[in-house]
Amino acid sequence: MRITLAGSCLRLLLAASASLLVAAEQPASAQKGPQERPAQPLVLENQGSFFVGGRLKHTTVDGNGRGLFGVGPEDDIMVDQMYVQYEIPKDHGAHTPVVMIHGCCLSGKTWETTPDGRMGWGEYFLRRERPVYIPDQPSRGRSGFDATAFDKAKLDSQPASGLPRIFTAGRNAAWKVFRFVPEYPAVYPDEQFPVAAFEELAKQVIPDLNATLVAPNPTFANLASLGSQLRGAVLIGHSESGFYPERAALMDASGVRGAISIEGQCPAGLTPQQLATLAKVPTLIVFGDHIADSPVTAWANILAGCRQFVQELATAGGDATLLSLPDAGLKGSSHMLMQDLNNLKIADLILDWIDKHVERSR
Amino acid sequence: MRITLAGSCLRLLLAASASLLVAAEQPASAQKGPQERPAQPLVLENQGSFFVGGRLKHTTVDGNGRGLFGVGPEDDIMVDQMYVQYEIPKDHGAHTPVVMIHGCCLSGKTWETTPDGRMGWGEYFLRRERPVYIPDQPSRGRSGFDATAFDKAKLDSQPASGLPRIFTAGRNAAWKVFRFVPEYPAVYPDEQFPVAAFEELAKQVIPDLNATLVAPNPTFANLASLGSQLRGAVLIGHSESGFYPERAALMDASGVRGAISIEGQCPAGLTPQQLATLAKVPTLIVFGDHIADSPVTAWANILAGCRQFVQELATAGGDATLLSLPDAGLKGSSHMLMQDLNNLKIADLILDWIDKHVERSR
Repeated sequence: MRITLAGSCLRLLLAASASLLVAAEQPASAQKGPQERPAQPLVLENQGSFFVGGRLKHTTVDGNGRGLFGVGPEDDIMVDQMYVQYEIPKDHGAHTPVVMIHGCCLSGKTWETTPDGRMGWGEYFLRRERPVYIPDQPSRGRSGFDATAFDKAKLDSQPASGLPRIFTAGRNAAWKVFRFVPEYPAVYPDEQFPVAAFEELAKQVIPDLNATLVAPNPTFANLASLGSQLRGAVLIGHSESGFYPERAALMDASGVRGAISIEGQCPAGLTPQQLATLAKVPTLIVFGDHIADSPVTAWANILAGCRQFVQELATAGGDATLLSLPDAGLKGSSHMLMQDLNNLKIADLILDWIDKHVERSR
Repeated sequence: MRITLAGSCLRLLLAASASLLVAAEQPASAQKGPQERPAQPLVLENQGSFFVGGRLKHTTVDGNGRGLFGVGPEDDIMVDQMYVQYEIPKDHGAHTPVVMIHGCCLSGKTWETTPDGRMGWGEYFLRRERPVYIPDQPSRGRSGFDATAFDKAKLDSQPASGLPRIFTAGRNAAWKVFRFVPEYPAVYPDEQFPVAAFEELAKQVIPDLNATLVAPNPTFANLASLGSQLRGAVLIGHSESGFYPERAALMDASGVRGAISIEGQCPAGLTPQQLATLAKVPTLIVFGDHIADSPVTAWANILAGCRQFVQELATAGGDATLLSLPDAGLKGSSHMLMQDLNNLKIADLILDWIDKHVERSR
């Protein structure tokens, strides 16, 4: 996508000195160890992890052609599985489970302790009595990935040009795209991301190997399957996975009780049948601040596309809401709004929406 | 390493029909969702995640040469960082934190819910009042990896033969090396691994990218740093990471209050100075069953090497114990003994050792 630095944006740029001033107002140091100790203990009914999906594949498993203790290099491995970590609070009543799916180049860590050591949404939703399920996208993190293409290419001395793309978000790209402000280390005056702890966010960024996946991305079916297995869940996607809740519902909507899309792209050109399916799922679209004035002009287009989607859902009889945080009085929200300084206030708005649009409608 | 299938081993082979009989005695189905609900809720003082280590690197971040919204393909990324997830029980008294490090082709998932849906060591140690810290090794899982070599090779159309090795343990390799019995699906009559849930273990297996790391493996320094940050911890390594607790202590022993090496290789040729350093750290070496009669003859050599190491530590004045589970009455323990059917009994032996050798000596 094209980026233009319009002249009108330049007034938003702070000099590095000003940014350092802002940085000084952030928590003094980045997180170095356990998060701030909460006032109340956390009481869990259960916790653990499991996998959804996955298929056995007979393939090359060792780029050195040796295998483990001489077994290999051909063997059966599991691919496409989705790792899911969960915690269930002791007092969750009849609350609907919530599934939180991370975005590009990130893992389930997105929803845990913030870069500056505060409570993340995962724990906060727990403390608000919701069972919380946090996957790593298949091909990322603890879900692993299918390394066949790399191993085969290495063994056969193929040109590396044919390998799947691997992508890691760098500091300068993240700074601009996550809407801190165009160039590191300058920041918006009202920026809510804890930029003094940016290096801790950089540590969360891991290589994105989605290019190794078959189409359609097995994550969609795995999320639908997880929703069914939980007998209904609210799916929350972010950025790359923003529309995954809807993609899951389009595979099988029976377990998708609500779809929450945070700062993701809402595709145009959905068929009337697809819209009719999605109109049965209460839908919340969330965007942070500095969309219109971002030097990444794609943001304005993405927001416009989601406004269009919400309109289409409404026309199809759906219950769809677009929540613009600055319009709701929360200024300076970044793309990583679940880690922003006011992240729990944003969570409250989302929990309130779940209560009103998902749980009261049951 | 060389593998020989000695004739004397053949008597241990069960026919597939017999193995199916054994499989039928295992829990009826593999894990499909949350683990068995424990009788008592789990009360946590704190939980969360953070990173240890990491360094910024200016490099190629996109195999497609584009970057995120046009920023790139050169950018600054973080590499070598170690993701650490932790839980601290409400009542932990003065107990020493425990750090559990997974082995090859695995992640922190190793210590969570077992493949057949029982409680893993992570939660069990918590319930035995220990703060528990579970890392993903740098270059694995949520710690991410440095994809530079792959991206550069793709961009420059280099031959893939020069790429770092990626290794994934396949089903047949794991079956033999983890000591279920040489060929899938046969199993030892007294096998303790829940083999009916083997596919759930296969889902835990993810590509090992240790070949992308600089030497010495930054995991060693990160573990030493974590121990110091926690003001002392017991480090538990397994298999590939079996000797990592000792490697960490050789970097900086100040935070290593105990080293527990499970089924890892103990290197020969340590210098007197290294042995003197390690002799100050209470050390427990643990091995499961079917070492001598495994078709992977390397196991017998590995055990012999560790017996030698324990002897050397004792000679250097250290407190070193070798715990052979079958000698302690626990027959049929596999390489993945933290997931075996009697995994909590094995944990009890380890907790007992910690109480006697680490905590009473403080």
